[in-house]
Amino acid sequence: MLSENNLVDDRYDVKGMLVYRGNGMFIIRQMSRYLEGLLEDDGHEPTLFPILIPENLLMMEAEHIAGFEDQVYWVTQGGKNKLDRKLALRPTSETCMYPMFALWTRTFQDLPIKVHQSVCVYRCETKQTRPLIRSREIYWNEGHTAFATREEALKNIETIKGIYTELISGLLCLPVQINERPQWDKFPGAEYTIAFDTLMPDGKTLQVATVHNLGQHFSKVFGIQYDDEKGEKHHAWQTSYGPGFGRLLAAAVAVHGDEKGMVLPPRVAPVQAVIIPIVFKDADKEAVTAYVGRIYDSLKEKGFRVRIDDSDERPGAKYFKWEQRGVPVRIEAGPRDLKEGKVVVVRRDTGGKEAVAFEGLDLAKTFKAIESDMRAKAKKAFDARRYSAKTLAEFKDNLGKGMVTVGWCQGKECAKPIEENGTILTVEEVEGECVVCGRKGVKIRVAKTY
Amino acid sequence: MLSENNLVDDRYDVKGMLVYRGNGMFIIRQMSRYLEGLLEDDGHEPTLFPILIPENLLMMEAEHIAGFEDQVYWVTQGGKNKLDRKLALRPTSETCMYPMFALWTRTFQDLPIKVHQSVCVYRCETKQTRPLIRSREIYWNEGHTAFATREEALKNIETIKGIYTELISGLLCLPVQINERPQWDKFPGAEYTIAFDTLMPDGKTLQVATVHNLGQHFSKVFGIQYDDEKGEKHHAWQTSYGPGFGRLLAAAVAVHGDEKGMVLPPRVAPVQAVIIPIVFKDADKEAVTAYVGRIYDSLKEKGFRVRIDDSDERPGAKYFKWEQRGVPVRIEAGPRDLKEGKVVVVRRDTGGKEAVAFEGLDLAKTFKAIESDMRAKAKKAFDARRYSAKTLAEFKDNLGKGMVTVGWCQGKECAKPIEENGTILTVEEVEGECVVCGRKGVKIRVAKTY
Repeated sequence: MLSENNLVDDRYDVKGMLVYRGNGMFIIRQMSRYLEGLLEDDGHEPTLFPILIPENLLMMEAEHIAGFEDQVYWVTQGGKNKLDRKLALRPTSETCMYPMFALWTRTFQDLPIKVHQSVCVYRCETKQTRPLIRSREIYWNEGHTAFATREEALKNIETIKGIYTELISGLLCLPVQINERPQWDKFPGAEYTIAFDTLMPDGKTLQVATVHNLGQHFSKVFGIQYDDEKGEKHHAWQTSYGPGFGRLLAAAVAVHGDEKGMVLPPRVAPVQAVIIPIVFKDADKEAVTAYVGRIYDSLKEKGFRVRIDDSDERPGAKYFKWEQRGVPVRIEAGPRDLKEGKVVVVRRDTGGKEAVAFEGLDLAKTFKAIESDMRAKAKKAFDARRYSAKTLAEFKDNLGKGMVTVGWCQGKECAKPIEENGTILTVEEVEGECVVCGRKGVKIRVAKTY
Repeated sequence: MLSENNLVDDRYDVKGMLVYRGNGMFIIRQMSRYLEGLLEDDGHEPTLFPILIPENLLMMEAEHIAGFEDQVYWVTQGGKNKLDRKLALRPTSETCMYPMFALWTRTFQDLPIKVHQSVCVYRCETKQTRPLIRSREIYWNEGHTAFATREEALKNIETIKGIYTELISGLLCLPVQINERPQWDKFPGAEYTIAFDTLMPDGKTLQVATVHNLGQHFSKVFGIQYDDEKGEKHHAWQTSYGPGFGRLLAAAVAVHGDEKGMVLPPRVAPVQAVIIPIVFKDADKEAVTAYVGRIYDSLKEKGFRVRIDDSDERPGAKYFKWEQRGVPVRIEAGPRDLKEGKVVVVRRDTGGKEAVAFEGLDLAKTFKAIESDMRAKAKKAFDARRYSAKTLAEFKDNLGKGMVTVGWCQGKECAKPIEENGTILTVEEVEGECVVCGRKGVKIRVAKTY
């Protein structure tokens, strides 16, 4: 589905590195521009920081480097000369940005700092790579902040949760579960990590975004300090966050698609509506062509991305082709429609067909309805895959179908059968009986993950 | 000027690598989105190709690698392991993209291929680096094509010349001279290179974009072949091109700026208009604040990027601050303006001040006038710095002030005194007497360059 639809090509000669083609890049750009708009409305500055991070900077935060050192690409040579010091391709930009934050921060008046950039990061994954889902070149948007107080940092995390929900569930119509990750699975150097998990049709969860509360770990290491109103020095409180565009694309295609092909959310679709002239008699051709032109012009003028398919194929073949490509709406117009001043609007998501007056054609409204229905349908399928289990047998039975909630005593031994095939997405602050040993413990959410 | 205005910060700890801050990144994004729109209207696909190019691919075209091998950054290590083969950080993407073009090309129906991407490229410059102008990380848009015929490739070059002129002279109001580079100065692997040179206030030219006719050099090496209608095989004809966003930003700031600070072209300015309430008596405050709010809302609604400066500073200090930042238009509104239903519009470029009816306030028209005047002013200064010289003394005298046209016999010895301090931008197909030896030859355009 990915390559047929001009989304990506995975035949490039470096493992784990993908070529994003026209439609894939278009959809991702719709995501990134939408997200950038939301972040900038919230006061984030657009930025672009260097890709290369000197070894000494990358190595400053101990947990951070321990988490990344096995997967960093190193530049060691410039031209024919060995470099004086190794330079890392950013695996993420904390250690690139925060020395600059330190330069920008003198007093409380310099805070908050909120920046974002849409760039690729690089991780020499040891796990099996998989197009869009586990790449060595990851296209994302990363946000980074520094605040004077912990409270402001916490408030920022709530804001970002809202913005990411707008992106993932609003724009892309994807259901998500927000899971605070267990301490052993947090971002290296963070106090804790909040993840956005969606569910793929095969029952595995896919982490599509994360938000990290960095506390003062990095500000202490990089010296991001400010004088308060009394002239006392404090370290800043920081957060960082990012959604992965490739994974979001993969999820949108997989979750919404059906047996006919892709079903694209209207606001990101490269073509939002295709107009198909229905002409069986040559005598009708000129009038229908003119009518279709008028429909096209009126939609184009309103800013919609619209195409006319006046190729020589038969209407049925055209329907099939544009359905396969996930175009949200098909508009059919033939001689009778022209006579009646109507057009036939066919929705890709439901197949629903409706004749409406050309004058009353309101694509914006149709797209809202499509989004709402796509969201509801995906949410229903998502919620139907929430399981709980009282026994290990039941747990094993449900694992792989979706997210499974079970009790766990928090003992290492009892984690073994649980983690054998699944990943603990989150530890809830809810009491539960351990599915392995029966002792009192907490509830956890488990799933097979990508 | 660059760092004061939140454009860039050059204190990052890797030589030649710059941090683009809020205003700098905003202006560049205005450029890149505008350019992307023009390219896509012309049928270019947005794409994103990998940053890493295996050594064997980079090395396939002999002239190309000879031109780049001294300045390529090499990734040699992934995690703790040495890589099997060295991977280059793309210095440009011909050798990354064209193996994929070969996979995509079977018959004439697969052509043309026209793609573009806005990305950074990497060159470990041996020359002195300079913020925005000579970086080791270069942010640009690169376009790449493959056509069935040479004619189509030539037509594409004309189209791109038009698109780049729209970007450089249209959007950014910068004058340019299009110079076909001498053969010895063409892009490595090209048949010839066309460059866009603008002129900095110090009299040096700055190359801001290039367009390359690649002929069949790369298509033969990478096997980009198609079957024509008779089933006969041919190699594709290719072009590639790119403007540098950092250099364009540097030129826009330097060329249009004056003694008060920046003068930003309206369509790229982060803030297009600042509204300043003029209040001397407390009694007027409420009414003027409400009036300013109405002005703000009406401009915002029309899509302008507008700010109110209601800080406690005195009006004069505010004028100074926003002039320094290059905001194209200042709108002043006080009690008398309110009474008369007027606002005072002050243009940054000319200082021209005009009272207009609030109802008749037409910023779009004002911006058009500003652009037109900025373009004319810059063009006039540019044309005033075109020189010609009959003697070597005269040549030396004018070199450094702008572009100097002189005759040259095309002999190596006579090039020496010419190239001692200047660069031959182009060799014209016009007869001229050599400025050194007096023999018959051609005319050349020479300048000091960045």
